[in-house]
Amino acid sequence: MTKIFDDPEEFADDQLAGFLDLYSDRLRGVPGGVVSLPDGEPKVAVVIGGGSGHYPAFCGTVGPGLATGAVVGNIFTSPSAAQAYSVGRAADQGRGVVFSFGNYAGDIMNFGIAAERLRKEGIDTRVVVVTDDVASADDPEQRRGIAGDFSVFKAMGAAAAAGADLDEVERVGRASNAATRTLGVAFSGCTMPGAGAPLFQVPAGHLGLGLGIHGEPGIEDVPLLPAEKLAALLVERLLADAPDGGASTRVAPILNGLGTTKYEELFLLWRHVSSLLRERGLTPVQPEVGELVTSLDMGGVSLTLQWLDDELEALWTADAYTPAYRKLAAPVARLDRTAVADGAGEAGAQEVAGPASEAARSLARTVVDALRGLQAVVAEHEDELGRIDAVAGDGDHGRGMLKGANAALRRAEDAPAEAGVAWVLGRAGRAWAEQAGGTSGVLWGAALEAFGAALGDERDAYGPALVADAIDAFAESVQDLGRAQAGDKTLLDALLPFAASFREQVATGAGTAEAWTVAADAATQGARATAAMRPKVGRARPLAEKSVGTPDAGATSLSLVVTRVGELLGAR
Amino acid sequence: MTKIFDDPEEFADDQLAGFLDLYSDRLRGVPGGVVSLPDGEPKVAVVIGGGSGHYPAFCGTVGPGLATGAVVGNIFTSPSAAQAYSVGRAADQGRGVVFSFGNYAGDIMNFGIAAERLRKEGIDTRVVVVTDDVASADDPEQRRGIAGDFSVFKAMGAAAAAGADLDEVERVGRASNAATRTLGVAFSGCTMPGAGAPLFQVPAGHLGLGLGIHGEPGIEDVPLLPAEKLAALLVERLLADAPDGGASTRVAPILNGLGTTKYEELFLLWRHVSSLLRERGLTPVQPEVGELVTSLDMGGVSLTLQWLDDELEALWTADAYTPAYRKLAAPVARLDRTAVADGAGEAGAQEVAGPASEAARSLARTVVDALRGLQAVVAEHEDELGRIDAVAGDGDHGRGMLKGANAALRRAEDAPAEAGVAWVLGRAGRAWAEQAGGTSGVLWGAALEAFGAALGDERDAYGPALVADAIDAFAESVQDLGRAQAGDKTLLDALLPFAASFREQVATGAGTAEAWTVAADAATQGARATAAMRPKVGRARPLAEKSVGTPDAGATSLSLVVTRVGELLGAR
Repeated sequence: MTKIFDDPEEFADDQLAGFLDLYSDRLRGVPGGVVSLPDGEPKVAVVIGGGSGHYPAFCGTVGPGLATGAVVGNIFTSPSAAQAYSVGRAADQGRGVVFSFGNYAGDIMNFGIAAERLRKEGIDTRVVVVTDDVASADDPEQRRGIAGDFSVFKAMGAAAAAGADLDEVERVGRASNAATRTLGVAFSGCTMPGAGAPLFQVPAGHLGLGLGIHGEPGIEDVPLLPAEKLAALLVERLLADAPDGGASTRVAPILNGLGTTKYEELFLLWRHVSSLLRERGLTPVQPEVGELVTSLDMGGVSLTLQWLDDELEALWTADAYTPAYRKLAAPVARLDRTAVADGAGEAGAQEVAGPASEAARSLARTVVDALRGLQAVVAEHEDELGRIDAVAGDGDHGRGMLKGANAALRRAEDAPAEAGVAWVLGRAGRAWAEQAGGTSGVLWGAALEAFGAALGDERDAYGPALVADAIDAFAESVQDLGRAQAGDKTLLDALLPFAASFREQVATGAGTAEAWTVAADAATQGARATAAMRPKVGRARPLAEKSVGTPDAGATSLSLVVTRVGELLGAR
Repeated sequence: MTKIFDDPEEFADDQLAGFLDLYSDRLRGVPGGVVSLPDGEPKVAVVIGGGSGHYPAFCGTVGPGLATGAVVGNIFTSPSAAQAYSVGRAADQGRGVVFSFGNYAGDIMNFGIAAERLRKEGIDTRVVVVTDDVASADDPEQRRGIAGDFSVFKAMGAAAAAGADLDEVERVGRASNAATRTLGVAFSGCTMPGAGAPLFQVPAGHLGLGLGIHGEPGIEDVPLLPAEKLAALLVERLLADAPDGGASTRVAPILNGLGTTKYEELFLLWRHVSSLLRERGLTPVQPEVGELVTSLDMGGVSLTLQWLDDELEALWTADAYTPAYRKLAAPVARLDRTAVADGAGEAGAQEVAGPASEAARSLARTVVDALRGLQAVVAEHEDELGRIDAVAGDGDHGRGMLKGANAALRRAEDAPAEAGVAWVLGRAGRAWAEQAGGTSGVLWGAALEAFGAALGDERDAYGPALVADAIDAFAESVQDLGRAQAGDKTLLDALLPFAASFREQVATGAGTAEAWTVAADAATQGARATAAMRPKVGRARPLAEKSVGTPDAGATSLSLVVTRVGELLGAR
């Protein structure tokens, strides 16, 4: 609901005054709208417009590389012919004017009148009408213009910026419109400034498929859909209407929010749209996900696709710099795609191992075997770990552990023969954290790294006392980052008994394999004991209370792992 | 209400996946968040974060000139220590890390833990907490962080981009926070993904003053205010809390929308904020008006002011290029502020007049006298014209005519002595259109220009037949642009009889002054006759029906003007 205004009748003028105050360094107000300050050589003037209430359409996209001027009408109302004439005249740089706007009767009339008048005064003026809304009519020429307005303005603005003449800019505009399709859905209506009730409404629990940006009737009301199905609906209907039978495989998408549908929702939806497009053999080119054509505080989203040929792709990807839309290739091109910092995915595999002692290399081989055993035991128990976790958590512990273990093993197996134990565990730990996801993934990854770092790569021998230190480093890392205490029903309840028991065994003279086996039993006891514990404090507590009587998944997986590793060490 | 999601529990991860797909050319996902690809020489890593649901905070502001990485928690929930550690480690470029976030207990704890762990691993890590929300506590150090987060991140990001070392970036962050104040108001609550009811509500017809971005209690609920009063409330309360007693007179403002409060409303509010700041002797520097820290679909707005010294101003105005925030000085600096196109305000006064005949110069002087008479008669009747207009319109006809007449007269009087009638009327008409505003301003401005153009500047004599042509050009311009017909109750109902009568008189041999006087009587008759007419069709029709019985304001003003001009011509 629109809440900020003074006199509702003056809303459009008042907001324009604020906009002009804000951007007075680059735009100037003229009767009826705004024009950009000139940028270099005279260019064809692309003058766009329509009613207010659709920001950044229309005045937010005036500037270098996009529109030269925008005519600003009242809320959801065509500007007058006089306004269009005035802005067109002010925008003209001696190379002619293209008026462009969505296909609505009022705009057609008023811009048409203004164009006639400008021609009478010797300013060659063309009109390019945008008709992208597939829901509004079967005949492509009868369709309304919605978010695809932006695609068409962008193409013409880029052509004009590149010095194209009036015929060329007009031609590009028509080609761009012919290649562009949009379908929108509405979740809720919008409220005009000062009005006590929405301009229109969408039935509760439904979405209005194809509903227009001023509330024009759509195709039908359908029950609300999960994001994945909504994405499929939008993509399939647009592809069914592809221009020229969809000859091009490159598309410029706009996933546009209408007002109250926010960025996070758009990103979430984009994930599905992106994969559906790719599944259908299409490549999204520099997609735009955000607000480009709004309708006050309307809830809803639209998907626009422009099927690109080489010319349209060059225009779509060209630089532009306006109040609301800024795209420049240079800052992104400068980024370094080769230098990848610590922990940065597969590219890290090209790192060179540092110097390592013979003992460190040997222990590295043992560690790879241990990781193999770890991966195997986690794979065997994946489902069981998931079931235990589901009692108090989201049930993904087995899956997360397996993803982490797989990644760590793969990275460890790829290590060069000269790599030492610390180097191998560092890489494996980072891979675990990256691939497992979530907090437990980071904990396991960091703990493996800490374990390796405590061992180091330059020792001549790795006796049981050193292994005890490494186990403590593992535990300290988990405690530092997880901030749980013994008894909080976390993996610490298996890990701390394991560490204490191992050190105790070593103090009595046990070797590593022997100490480990005894300590693994202590871990198993600890994991079992968690069944009686109250869960750790935190966000998930109400749900986690149910877990009394069930062992902790994290403690269980740790005990399974150390037990399996103990078996391997014992068998050597 | 949040409408687009799959599993609500996975909302934060799902939206992040879409975000990363979208910006994979410049960002990479790491466990717990995102980091920017490196940009040139190694820099101090500025790692920001907090819960999801605040886009573009936090991941939307990662990129060159701003943050190096963002930690992404669940909706409105602090990220875990493990996530912060993971992102901090991935973002480190060997020059240390600054964690920065708003002052919330969960973030303080988790980022603090991560910082300790990173320090243990040899990565020097600092923590800068943002405390800008003046409504949340009296003690500046106890305050929450809201939209001022951005101001602080921007300062540190710019310092890091410029190569500053860790001490320096930390110092800048603290200085920036100390100089920053925010006050917000909420109009309506937000709804968590999957929730059936809002997380919190604001009483209908009220605004929550100082309400937090997660619905934390504010100062009080007050009845909704008109925009002007809302702006005053925000500005006055912030200025009362100015740091260092407000020693600086330069401020960096952010007028931030929280979700459903849309751009047009923000621009409208900005107009008042801008003038209030200037009235109080403050200069707004590159203000940001838009969405920088949102709260899902919450309705509301906040005003942030950062009091600038030279260092902070340089950091605030520095270039940045991130998914959601892009500012580059170069494209604006390239714009041509000297070459102003046709009709562009006072700068147009530097234009040089074209060649003009002696007769054209003489007629120009007559026209200046006529404009003086026009201005005087409009000034005398301003209130009366307003009253007539108020019956069917918004009552601003007298005011608009006077603004236009004042501007036209001023511009005509400034014309050089060698200027001809067409040149003078062209400038005067453009000034009228600019200053009067609205459709009638454009019509009068264009008509005066057309009148002058029909006369031209190169004739040896300007006889009555030529004046008849010019009057027809005036009328044609009004008809072309206004698209009204005779009898529609517009100024045409005085103008067309005037034009017809003038031509008729000329045909019978009358001179200009004589014909004009007779024609002016016809205009007066026409204006009176409009009282009986039904209004012209259009948006305002229901209201305008009431105007039957009242003369038309536009026809009345035209008849008054031509009558006064006739008197002047007759007196010569």
